Amino acid sequence: MKEKITIGILGGGQLAKMSALQAYKLGYDISILEKTKNSPAGKITQNEFVGWVDDYKILESFANSASLITLENEFVDYHHLEFLESLGKKVVPSSKTISLIQDKLIQKDTLQKNKLPVAKFVSINSDTTYKNLSQKLGEKFILKSRKLGYDGYGNYLVNNEKSLLEGINKLSERHLELYAEEFVKFKKELAIIVVRNKKEIKTYPVVETIQKNHICHLVIAPIKLNNDLLNYVKKIAIQSVKAVEGFGVFGIEFFLTNENKILINEMAPRTHNTGHYTIEACVTSQFENHIRSILDLPLGSTEMIDKFAVMINLLGKTNGLNFPQNIEAVLKNSKAHIHIYGKEESRIGRKLGHITLVGKNKNELIKQAKILERKIIY
Amino acid sequence: MKEKITIGILGGGQLAKMSALQAYKLGYDISILEKTKNSPAGKITQNEFVGWVDDYKILESFANSASLITLENEFVDYHHLEFLESLGKKVVPSSKTISLIQDKLIQKDTLQKNKLPVAKFVSINSDTTYKNLSQKLGEKFILKSRKLGYDGYGNYLVNNEKSLLEGINKLSERHLELYAEEFVKFKKELAIIVVRNKKEIKTYPVVETIQKNHICHLVIAPIKLNNDLLNYVKKIAIQSVKAVEGFGVFGIEFFLTNENKILINEMAPRTHNTGHYTIEACVTSQFENHIRSILDLPLGSTEMIDKFAVMINLLGKTNGLNFPQNIEAVLKNSKAHIHIYGKEESRIGRKLGHITLVGKNKNELIKQAKILERKIIY
Repeated sequence: MKEKITIGILGGGQLAKMSALQAYKLGYDISILEKTKNSPAGKITQNEFVGWVDDYKILESFANSASLITLENEFVDYHHLEFLESLGKKVVPSSKTISLIQDKLIQKDTLQKNKLPVAKFVSINSDTTYKNLSQKLGEKFILKSRKLGYDGYGNYLVNNEKSLLEGINKLSERHLELYAEEFVKFKKELAIIVVRNKKEIKTYPVVETIQKNHICHLVIAPIKLNNDLLNYVKKIAIQSVKAVEGFGVFGIEFFLTNENKILINEMAPRTHNTGHYTIEACVTSQFENHIRSILDLPLGSTEMIDKFAVMINLLGKTNGLNFPQNIEAVLKNSKAHIHIYGKEESRIGRKLGHITLVGKNKNELIKQAKILERKIIY
Repeated sequence: MKEKITIGILGGGQLAKMSALQAYKLGYDISILEKTKNSPAGKITQNEFVGWVDDYKILESFANSASLITLENEFVDYHHLEFLESLGKKVVPSSKTISLIQDKLIQKDTLQKNKLPVAKFVSINSDTTYKNLSQKLGEKFILKSRKLGYDGYGNYLVNNEKSLLEGINKLSERHLELYAEEFVKFKKELAIIVVRNKKEIKTYPVVETIQKNHICHLVIAPIKLNNDLLNYVKKIAIQSVKAVEGFGVFGIEFFLTNENKILINEMAPRTHNTGHYTIEACVTSQFENHIRSILDLPLGSTEMIDKFAVMINLLGKTNGLNFPQNIEAVLKNSKAHIHIYGKEESRIGRKLGHITLVGKNKNELIKQAKILERKIIY
């Protein structure tokens, strides 16, 4: 790298911000495109572009400000990434990768074609009936938006003709194209972070994730599981990233089914909530490795520096508060690290920050995490 | 803390930048005043004020942008801090503390009055002769600028009448007021970081520092020394901070003399080069504790998370290069962490970044640090 580098990030939320902080540590500059002003990442750079990817005038100015471009969510239509690539900009992950991931039906199809384990799924069109679907997926299944789904938005549980119609009506408000997926009975949810540059591919430890109202609530690193299963998860995580021709950081979520089978639930082509613990608990965080990987710099060690880490999300408990109250409770705990994203205001259920605890006693860390989370008023 | 907070920092160099990154982690905003545009900290905020403390118009706008004010060097004349305080702004450390530190003669005098161990010193005025000084300090002593000295600038070794005159002429170019100090023969140089808020005061481990051409080159944490000496260093470090009514982070440097005596060399009312290792090697870095202490938030643990840490400075080896070459060599080493400050250009001897290695084998870390430092082209 002979020149000073400015990394352009599509999106200005907490993932962009935490990547930006690592880019700054390494001496790079940052450029942010976000729909509104004063986003968490937008306000920590002078290169803040306000607008969105469908406005090619602003997109082009943004592109001109950046040496290369990355993203913090998979919802940017891959055609806009193709436009950026047509300007001669390197985009990581590429439009091709995003095209294979952002439509969940294509994502599942791509994984299945590569012989990777996914739940049964069926595409939906105007002729689809409950009878067709239930024959293939069982009486109870999940209707899903093919695009733009997150944190449970875009999912609908179906168990008869009536709920199928209700589901189609409800989900179509958000996004027209739908598909249906087998209802998987699982013991645990697992996740892993994979990072890849042109020469190397590395995995972080496999973690257990606990959801609350479909939002990631608690992450426990590492998960206790037999070695064969752990190695299998790592192997298929790497194969999944290769299947979508992915470079950069990927978060991949799995089910451990009641029958002890591993199924890939979904993959995200970006830094991931289930990898926030890596900031304090690993030699190199997912955010620093994100920056390293998109620049094709040597990847850092993904090993943990202590026995366990527990991450708990701080979700908004009120509407409108502009700064969390009582963070002192967390700061007093020498095992706890708090991150506040700096969003302009709280909203019930909104991700506003997180706490990571690092130490040797897993159950104690989980207990402390829950106590501390309850103390923060936000 | 009910309101969103913007922390104003006087100065936009690497110390301001590394503090800013921790403030961002905790959800605060940052405002920077620096003489030139695009300073390391100035360019990572939209609140970048260009000008300096003697321009009260810009100083007042800067003050208005900030909830409270701190600083990254002790060269800001304390009268300008009094002006900020007269506007009703909280300044940490205060104008009072800075007035007791920035003039090294007053600093030494304050420490001595508090019965803290310092080398012998004598003030200099127009009547001073070599004979007077040598009677009190010995044949060989050091002439020093009372203000604005750093990295050896502002020091002159004197051993006869002639070199005294030469020294006075040379140093007066920089700053008119001088004093003279005993030439201390020492075995080692030590340093410690102290952090204090209204309720707590904490010390980091005592470290060994190795200078090269009067610039901090290598820091080894912790130093191997008998417990009585270590406790004594910690005790007088705390007393020194109290002696100057200090709050915030302080870096204090010591000599371990040939006679095994500890003398305070100097103290800096800010985050310190000898504390950079704390970013990766301690539970809470000096920069996060700086932010916590000025906001009177609970201080984080200052304990190390591994056995040893070694920090080596990356000093400019060329003039004009705008980005370091071959950082890959460092990124490949899983024990090494690199920080690049993002200065607009290199200059021979300029502090442009640093590398910290963390691990269990001290000699191996020192060896690796020196090898890696040589590989970077900057």
